[in-house]
Amino acid sequence: MKKTIIINGTFVTGRTEENVLEGCMVIEGNRLTYIGKEIPEPLENYDEIIRGERKLYMPGLVNTHGHAAMTLLRGYGDDLALQVWLEEKMWPMEAKFGPAGVRSGTLLAILEMIKGGTTTFVDMYDHMNEVAQAVSVSGMRACLTRGVIGLCPEDIQEFKLKEAIAFAKDWNGAAGGRITTMMAPHAPYTCPPDYIERFVQAAHDLDLPIHTHMSETKREVEANVEQYGLRPVQHLEKLGVFTRPTLVAHGVHLTDEEIAILAKYNVGVSHNPGSNLKLASGVARVPEMLRAGIQVSLGTDGAASNNNLDMFEEMRLAALIHKGVSGDPLAVPAAEAFRMGTSMGASSIWLDDIGTLEAGMKADFIALDLDQPHLLPRTDYVSHIVYSASAHDVVDVYVDGQCIVRGRECLTLDEEKIKREFEDTFTRLTKG
Amino acid sequence: MKKTIIINGTFVTGRTEENVLEGCMVIEGNRLTYIGKEIPEPLENYDEIIRGERKLYMPGLVNTHGHAAMTLLRGYGDDLALQVWLEEKMWPMEAKFGPAGVRSGTLLAILEMIKGGTTTFVDMYDHMNEVAQAVSVSGMRACLTRGVIGLCPEDIQEFKLKEAIAFAKDWNGAAGGRITTMMAPHAPYTCPPDYIERFVQAAHDLDLPIHTHMSETKREVEANVEQYGLRPVQHLEKLGVFTRPTLVAHGVHLTDEEIAILAKYNVGVSHNPGSNLKLASGVARVPEMLRAGIQVSLGTDGAASNNNLDMFEEMRLAALIHKGVSGDPLAVPAAEAFRMGTSMGASSIWLDDIGTLEAGMKADFIALDLDQPHLLPRTDYVSHIVYSASAHDVVDVYVDGQCIVRGRECLTLDEEKIKREFEDTFTRLTKG
Repeated sequence: MKKTIIINGTFVTGRTEENVLEGCMVIEGNRLTYIGKEIPEPLENYDEIIRGERKLYMPGLVNTHGHAAMTLLRGYGDDLALQVWLEEKMWPMEAKFGPAGVRSGTLLAILEMIKGGTTTFVDMYDHMNEVAQAVSVSGMRACLTRGVIGLCPEDIQEFKLKEAIAFAKDWNGAAGGRITTMMAPHAPYTCPPDYIERFVQAAHDLDLPIHTHMSETKREVEANVEQYGLRPVQHLEKLGVFTRPTLVAHGVHLTDEEIAILAKYNVGVSHNPGSNLKLASGVARVPEMLRAGIQVSLGTDGAASNNNLDMFEEMRLAALIHKGVSGDPLAVPAAEAFRMGTSMGASSIWLDDIGTLEAGMKADFIALDLDQPHLLPRTDYVSHIVYSASAHDVVDVYVDGQCIVRGRECLTLDEEKIKREFEDTFTRLTKG
Repeated sequence: MKKTIIINGTFVTGRTEENVLEGCMVIEGNRLTYIGKEIPEPLENYDEIIRGERKLYMPGLVNTHGHAAMTLLRGYGDDLALQVWLEEKMWPMEAKFGPAGVRSGTLLAILEMIKGGTTTFVDMYDHMNEVAQAVSVSGMRACLTRGVIGLCPEDIQEFKLKEAIAFAKDWNGAAGGRITTMMAPHAPYTCPPDYIERFVQAAHDLDLPIHTHMSETKREVEANVEQYGLRPVQHLEKLGVFTRPTLVAHGVHLTDEEIAILAKYNVGVSHNPGSNLKLASGVARVPEMLRAGIQVSLGTDGAASNNNLDMFEEMRLAALIHKGVSGDPLAVPAAEAFRMGTSMGASSIWLDDIGTLEAGMKADFIALDLDQPHLLPRTDYVSHIVYSASAHDVVDVYVDGQCIVRGRECLTLDEEKIKREFEDTFTRLTKG
């Protein structure tokens, strides 16, 4: 088994103790086997020695909610009212994607994400075989699910559910375990209650978790109350969703009682600050959720509502907006935002062996170029990561022990080919 | 006079008509003399031909409020309560800066700013001769002022005022006109009323504008009312400040009446969203100010409260937070945030010949590398600039017709030397 050592590096481990250390880290196969100040054995015992001077190593970022193929809609109709944007811009274009469009848009998203330090992402979309194949070749880690909108005739509902089940079965544990799957009714407002219950049953049958959009907008919460007499959290609780491990996206409009229910069932919340702000959905009650013990992670959402897939920005937004809105300069400190982007992201998707740099964990980590004006002086590295760094500072990326980005170059994907095909796809979609 | 043409470029001009065009731009000396689709005269007539394929050209960014030397305090004591941060971290360190510290911190800030596409900045600090000299060698444009805190004995007040006047006189119009100056009483809460009036008189005598902090925190506004019976805007109005052209920083806590007063006197407001959020000062009423016709520009503030000097982020925050907080997805659209970062920044500091790409304007412009995943597809370039781009996308920077950054390398400053001296300075300050 290949044995690599990184020496003279600066490490932000994400552990409670010795969060920052100067020293070295050993990778054997797909695992970290040592991290500490001293070199554990003579350098001649290693197959590869990497000099880590002026690099900052940290766990890879975990993006817990998104729709990768929507990179094709980046900048396509911004600054419009929500319904106009959806009905006149997003939906007509998405309807034309097909498998080829999803492949092309997803590959560009993966390229952007891995070059920017995201090592794991959640994707909820259609034509998911294309997504899984793209993940497989890219070397990234992903938790994937066929997101199903149930506002359709029963036979189509049936077809979509079967498709979602087949995808979840086929790909769970694939790509050497880098791919896991979930079941995903799209949202309470796009799936009738009995249809959601069928997803819950399937998740039980397959022993899989559930992912869904929930309480993103005030309007949607009000409509849920009008239609079902319950707010979305109680509605999903009643349908049995939380009898499965669950990750909900957004959770912007929550009452104290709803927060307590989510905490009780250990439901994770993917906070998407960039998307929530851009779509004017509001500001999620993140400090309250964290205080209640909820695992709050971070997601970019699709590139149509963000508009980039830079997880450093999501950490920064999470650390900034809750201070500004609450008036408390200690709301969501940098260290908490860092955990939201790394270890809480990992545990939110039930991956307990990624998200920190510790012996025994899988080797999913990234290196930032510290030798840049905006990352000086050498004061507080966690603060630099959250308040000053960006996707562009990432130089090296490892997933499952494999180096997939080195010196800002992606080693697993042909960047030029992907960009050209993406532009061709976009041209085809807009002309077609 | 040297004549340069950029051909086959994509230009975001900042003009009302033809805001985006594919074509070419001519620079003669320090001015733009042509921008349009066609090449105006045979290429052999030009001294330099630049191929602009896959580059996005736009006006240089204008940072209208900051304290450059505070890069030395980046990450030095983040996530503390405001008073602890100021009294235990910021002030003791700043007291030790001296001219050498200010020089070193400012040079690093300038390096970060110009490499990130900021071509003009406002600086309010101490030891301003050092700042002006750094600006002079860097090739940047700046509007500088000695910020004076008047909570001190009369003889010190007198000394500081004289120093501020001497600096403003000596450097106004220096560096071939790239440097202009202002008079700056630090803030209503740090300068007694009679002292502010002396700044107003000096500004009249020297025919200079005034810059000051105003209404950054709720507490400060309340204290102003307690002490003087007036809110800060009315207080400054009464002291005659607005009889001079004025730029105020922050303006977070304003009533409708105060907004009307600022509009009446044509007072510019430098909105600092990153700093206001991080310090939990609140969210300024930017949509209301813009509707009232106030020139709202963008500032990073010092790196201790931001923590980087990336003006793309300030544009993005300005475009995002007001949507999220107001619930209106059309609040501060991308095009408005773009103007805040460029042309409104320029006019806020009374520079009417920068801020757009038009024949007759000074040649202050930047080029972004468009050939990157996060800037595809080629949909809406203004949207890409505001919602997706960052300082790291900037490859070339021109100020006053001179190329000061080419291919991400600064041509006027020795980056390695500045970074090493900066680290030495920081070490000296923390050990001393």
